[in-house]
Amino acid sequence: MGWLPDETGLEKCAANHVALTPLSHLNRAALIWPDREALVYGAARWTYANLRDRVTRQAAMLAALGVAPGDVVATLLPNVPAQVEASFGVPACGAILNTINTRLDVDTVAYILGHGDAKVVLADTQFIALAEEAAAAQDTPPTIVEVPDPEAGFPATGRHPVFEELLAQADHGFEWHLPQDEWESIALNYTSGTTGRPKGVVYHHRGAYLMTMGTVVSWRITLYPKLLTIVPLFHCNGWCHAWMMPLVGGTIVCCRDVSAGAIFDALADEQVTHFGGAPIVLNMLVNAGEDSRRSFDQAVEVFTAGAPPPAATLAKMAALGFNVTHVYGLTETYGHVSENIWQPGDWDTLDDGAKAALRARQGVAFPMMEGLDVFDANHAPIPADAQTQGEIGIRGNAVMKGYYKNPEATAEAFAGGWFRSGDIAVKHPDGYVQIADRAKDIIISGGENVSSVEVEGALMHHDAVDLCAVVARPDDTWGEVPCAFVEVKPGAQTTEAELIAFVRARLAGFKTPKAVVFGELPKTSTGKVQKFVLRERARAMHATEAEGID
Amino acid sequence: MGWLPDETGLEKCAANHVALTPLSHLNRAALIWPDREALVYGAARWTYANLRDRVTRQAAMLAALGVAPGDVVATLLPNVPAQVEASFGVPACGAILNTINTRLDVDTVAYILGHGDAKVVLADTQFIALAEEAAAAQDTPPTIVEVPDPEAGFPATGRHPVFEELLAQADHGFEWHLPQDEWESIALNYTSGTTGRPKGVVYHHRGAYLMTMGTVVSWRITLYPKLLTIVPLFHCNGWCHAWMMPLVGGTIVCCRDVSAGAIFDALADEQVTHFGGAPIVLNMLVNAGEDSRRSFDQAVEVFTAGAPPPAATLAKMAALGFNVTHVYGLTETYGHVSENIWQPGDWDTLDDGAKAALRARQGVAFPMMEGLDVFDANHAPIPADAQTQGEIGIRGNAVMKGYYKNPEATAEAFAGGWFRSGDIAVKHPDGYVQIADRAKDIIISGGENVSSVEVEGALMHHDAVDLCAVVARPDDTWGEVPCAFVEVKPGAQTTEAELIAFVRARLAGFKTPKAVVFGELPKTSTGKVQKFVLRERARAMHATEAEGID
Repeated sequence: MGWLPDETGLEKCAANHVALTPLSHLNRAALIWPDREALVYGAARWTYANLRDRVTRQAAMLAALGVAPGDVVATLLPNVPAQVEASFGVPACGAILNTINTRLDVDTVAYILGHGDAKVVLADTQFIALAEEAAAAQDTPPTIVEVPDPEAGFPATGRHPVFEELLAQADHGFEWHLPQDEWESIALNYTSGTTGRPKGVVYHHRGAYLMTMGTVVSWRITLYPKLLTIVPLFHCNGWCHAWMMPLVGGTIVCCRDVSAGAIFDALADEQVTHFGGAPIVLNMLVNAGEDSRRSFDQAVEVFTAGAPPPAATLAKMAALGFNVTHVYGLTETYGHVSENIWQPGDWDTLDDGAKAALRARQGVAFPMMEGLDVFDANHAPIPADAQTQGEIGIRGNAVMKGYYKNPEATAEAFAGGWFRSGDIAVKHPDGYVQIADRAKDIIISGGENVSSVEVEGALMHHDAVDLCAVVARPDDTWGEVPCAFVEVKPGAQTTEAELIAFVRARLAGFKTPKAVVFGELPKTSTGKVQKFVLRERARAMHATEAEGID
Repeated sequence: MGWLPDETGLEKCAANHVALTPLSHLNRAALIWPDREALVYGAARWTYANLRDRVTRQAAMLAALGVAPGDVVATLLPNVPAQVEASFGVPACGAILNTINTRLDVDTVAYILGHGDAKVVLADTQFIALAEEAAAAQDTPPTIVEVPDPEAGFPATGRHPVFEELLAQADHGFEWHLPQDEWESIALNYTSGTTGRPKGVVYHHRGAYLMTMGTVVSWRITLYPKLLTIVPLFHCNGWCHAWMMPLVGGTIVCCRDVSAGAIFDALADEQVTHFGGAPIVLNMLVNAGEDSRRSFDQAVEVFTAGAPPPAATLAKMAALGFNVTHVYGLTETYGHVSENIWQPGDWDTLDDGAKAALRARQGVAFPMMEGLDVFDANHAPIPADAQTQGEIGIRGNAVMKGYYKNPEATAEAFAGGWFRSGDIAVKHPDGYVQIADRAKDIIISGGENVSSVEVEGALMHHDAVDLCAVVARPDDTWGEVPCAFVEVKPGAQTTEAELIAFVRARLAGFKTPKAVVFGELPKTSTGKVQKFVLRERARAMHATEAEGID
């Protein structure tokens, strides 16, 4: 391969090889932009000099609490400054950051604290009881450091050392631990798995660094963006966006509680230019009442991911002035690794419906990734015919190191040299990938595969539908049939017959729901609809029907 | 450090670790943008699908000529498509690309071909005699492949295999050699050293990849830029810009001969958005006659490097509508590694002179770099007082592997864990670095250091001065005094006394030239003024004066 015949003296040394790490971005930003605003939260407005100093002191504080390099530090925090700072402060003391979803139950949090063996937990006062109960379940409980937020209504309980007080005593001169090897671990993120115990996904410094570089390219970011943190930082480290902002001298605007009003306020008052959010956030914005809307002048770039956004929602977002890019990824891939890159020219001339349909695709690999393809059961790439379904495989430097203390699951996930996502997709003739469904969400009706996502997309076009989910219901004739669960918009009205007819006008008969159930949908801690709950309900409906009671 | 207690199963594998290489960018671009224009040269307009295919065939052609992985392939080419393609085609066959400066003399080219042991030389017909003579001087002469350019007046000589004919026979299905280790070598670039033999600077795939990522951030590049290749691709591989363009789906517009007319035509006809160029190119544009000027609507971002551009030139470029960013780097650092990042806000309110003065600084480290600082003789950082001078040191992943077959020079260059640039600079209180001079260009007059760059900057403000260089002339009283060599603008007039008085009004007496010599300046093959020639002339002037003849 590409080695010269004589490479004597051409080895790595301190001058020409430095381990890639997002910590470098913050060091550089503090040198170049010491006085630029790095972080905004309510009345707090911190420059890059402030942020670096606070990160240094967070690292010093953790070291003083006994955290050693290689230890795990957990957080139970909303998107407040302490959580942003922990993205840098925890690795700066050589530790691994384990941001825990604040919406989890005590039992799961206790499992995570035990599995990761966290030494310290930074916990917001709102979630202090959760932290306490989960910590109490450990043989050697972690130290809890409380992060109160009096302005948000959460003053300190007095039961634990307080974050800002420890920070005030910490050493401004603490020397950061920078990785010697970019394969060193930087974060441990547990999957939200709907069944079974969550798995601990391990990230390295190299992947975190490359995510920041690739995201700048794809999100059309130049210098000095303003990012609103809507994606929880406990979700793939907020898609690595906090690590990216110092690279471009940007400002992070913290958003503790996500609402349409809070988002419009940040757009109007802080001139936010970028944010990421699940389709449910887009829904929130397009359905916002006039009282919470604010006008803003800047162009706003939005990344959306988590589920294929309905074309109807995307079309409405465009009308509001948001440029939405649909991205796709998993906890195992540090967040987004595919994006629906817009193709100017032909695509610009399409009508709004066609544009929205294009925007709903998951697209192509991010710049820092090496491969995104769709494979059949024999691990051969499927044809790019927009029809054949297969499993999305992902390869590249922003794929996890593996699952912590679970080499079997890791080996299974990496079988064939690609990360097997579990997501079922088609590939369009232009190479763009579009998710048909999660493998377990596919409905097989009369031998035909029905994509629940496709049926949901059709339902979302109906004006009365606020949110919906379609699952398989057992059927004695067809094996399975689609069954829809629907949340109706406040003040709107519809019927089962109307919705079935609405879908039937758009999709094949075998794809049309045979039943529609109205009511609030069950959701996971990250806001995803819990389809396994709905599947159980659908099974129960079938059983009841079969018994002839209904 | 940051290793979890149990890292079993978290090792690198094919799914999660891929060697960084700019070859990945072209593979990705050909998948995402097969029909977008990748390369334009006269009537040739090639899409990314075309470009990838031509690169594949160039690699196949080289392999068919006997080039094996690890071999060196040299080029003697202007900025024509074959040179752009070689950036990818040579590494795609596992070889190392050695772009040779076409302006060099036979003896030096022969030295380079021998030192690098090139197996094949791709040579433009314009430089075929140079290639032939240099090849003939080798014990085992390399194979010459001729790249004619009939449209430019260089039809094939008939003496060598012709590039396009070999390409036409080459295998479209050739499988690229991708690096297994990102430390593998991708390019071998010889310094233009004004004294002694040139040194062979070795680049690796990792550095080339990271240069592309960092440049996108700093050059404010979003998708689909149009780059005019003014910087020769034999100069730090054109600052790595050809490797970057597929990352952003951009178009490379080839420029064989650089003139104001050619640049304005490309701006008007091809809507070029980005180019890099030495200050002499900026000079060419601001001094262009009305007949060669064309109007253009797009914003144009210009990187300039090679020497500190005079503030006067920068001010005029701004008036023409070019946003000029001053960058700095060396062959040893893959091109640009520091940039004068503009600070919006305070800087925007300054007058044009003050802005231009700021733009003349070399600035701060690029995003992909880890350190840029100025050191005293004991390798301690100098104070940021804008006065103290020291040597610029550079550290990071875009520093060369070292000098080929010269471990002693490599060790000396990396002494202290930083690459020692040989450039003398001050550091401003805001951390921005500004070059005072090359170490050997400093004039020491009466014990005071005189920056030749500062004196040149003062002279450039005079309307009649087209180009100038200031060097030391031996002086019996002061040790050395500044001596100026000046090219006067066509049609302008001035005198020695007028220029001396002009500088004296701006600078201290000891910095004012004691003599001014008018006439064309001697330049190196890359267009740099050969100060060592001028120093000899100045020494001769002193000797003559001392002998009392003049």
